[in-house]
Amino acid sequence: MVRYKAIISYDGTDFSGFQRQPRQRTVQEEIEKTLLRLNSGQSVTVHGAGRTDAGVHAYGQVIHFDLPQARELEKLRFGLDTQTPDDIDVISVQEVSENFHARYNKHYKTYEFLVDIGRPKNPLLRHYATHYPYPLTFSLIEEAIKDLLGTHDFTGFTASGSSVVNKVRTIKMADVRFEKEKQLLVFTFSGTGFLYKQVRNMVGTLLKIGNGKLPVGQIRTVLTTKDRTLAGPTAAGNGLYLKEIIYEE
Amino acid sequence: MVRYKAIISYDGTDFSGFQRQPRQRTVQEEIEKTLLRLNSGQSVTVHGAGRTDAGVHAYGQVIHFDLPQARELEKLRFGLDTQTPDDIDVISVQEVSENFHARYNKHYKTYEFLVDIGRPKNPLLRHYATHYPYPLTFSLIEEAIKDLLGTHDFTGFTASGSSVVNKVRTIKMADVRFEKEKQLLVFTFSGTGFLYKQVRNMVGTLLKIGNGKLPVGQIRTVLTTKDRTLAGPTAAGNGLYLKEIIYEE
Repeated sequence: MVRYKAIISYDGTDFSGFQRQPRQRTVQEEIEKTLLRLNSGQSVTVHGAGRTDAGVHAYGQVIHFDLPQARELEKLRFGLDTQTPDDIDVISVQEVSENFHARYNKHYKTYEFLVDIGRPKNPLLRHYATHYPYPLTFSLIEEAIKDLLGTHDFTGFTASGSSVVNKVRTIKMADVRFEKEKQLLVFTFSGTGFLYKQVRNMVGTLLKIGNGKLPVGQIRTVLTTKDRTLAGPTAAGNGLYLKEIIYEE
Repeated sequence: MVRYKAIISYDGTDFSGFQRQPRQRTVQEEIEKTLLRLNSGQSVTVHGAGRTDAGVHAYGQVIHFDLPQARELEKLRFGLDTQTPDDIDVISVQEVSENFHARYNKHYKTYEFLVDIGRPKNPLLRHYATHYPYPLTFSLIEEAIKDLLGTHDFTGFTASGSSVVNKVRTIKMADVRFEKEKQLLVFTFSGTGFLYKQVRNMVGTLLKIGNGKLPVGQIRTVLTTKDRTLAGPTAAGNGLYLKEIIYEE
């Protein structure tokens, strides 16, 4: 038995998410179908580091899977890359110890969120950025986003009823920049882990702050009260990108 | 009768091109269907400045059309923008004299061509850039592209059998840059007009020069011999963007 770690990218537009679901097109299933073929008809389970939602994209999703015997790495990557649908690409494959687990090994994830603030929206970005055509004061967003840095209980930024008990996470990078030519706001967040819909709820809150509908201190308020109803709406999935995952040694 | 000029953008992926064709989904037809509704069931013909091919995108296509009576401009823009499919957007609408013709009034067009040189390809760009995974020497392309500047007979860069008699055109800007983060080559061409598939043939030739398969002087050779067979292959439409059209007063 040999364990492989692969870095993959995918366009989330035509998937119902990463995780396998009955009767839905998912990234996990498409890769498992290909591995089944490459593994002489024996099924292979794919484990993903992050379970991206429907419409959410990835540049650096990490998966692991086991094969009965060792394979030449580039051949395996090439076979996986060319035989999966063209909205999935396999960037690299490496052998790892059987102790490596894509999801449970300690790691940092970096997410990006793209907001199209152009008027009217850019049709070429409709699946790749969330359109936000309302007035925004960039400096308010720049100020509020700093409150996300550090170790906090992010209960107020996740969906209620989550089965996760410990909602404390650390955000080590929280940044926003404005790309003028494409009229894009680009949010970047890096942290030890993100709760379900956390990034999208943080972005939704920051946009409402930028729009003046929530006070600039609202991030702090949501963190201390842990009250989901005080946060902004959940931003759509089409603007969200899982950019990179880095594992601690 | 009032003539309107509109600037539109569209994602070319799901269209068979700009120009109306029977039994094909086209930009012209989608806009005409919307104008028919906005014009109380009376048909309206849309004239486009450039006839983009299947898969080709536009950020600044210009159209003109006539309506029996004057309309409030933003209402007309909004109606057109929201009632056309979401892969078309109407950026602006203005009244023009009845002498204005989107196609025949003298103008400059700017095209961009995006090449994804990443390995493996970026699945999120598969409809928006042409993938070129072969080795490229950027300096060869930078050198060769200068030969396109100026007034030339571009017969060697257009499809044979074209009905156009005069194939002399002027290119006033021809540029290439490398966007490292996205692994994109971005070509920009600006000129008095471009022949059928001219930009795609020029890009195909430049890529072959960059790849070392054609000598760096090949652009000059194709221009002087007017021989299509000496040029490179026609690059795919998905990387081509009609960026902007500027009319001379």
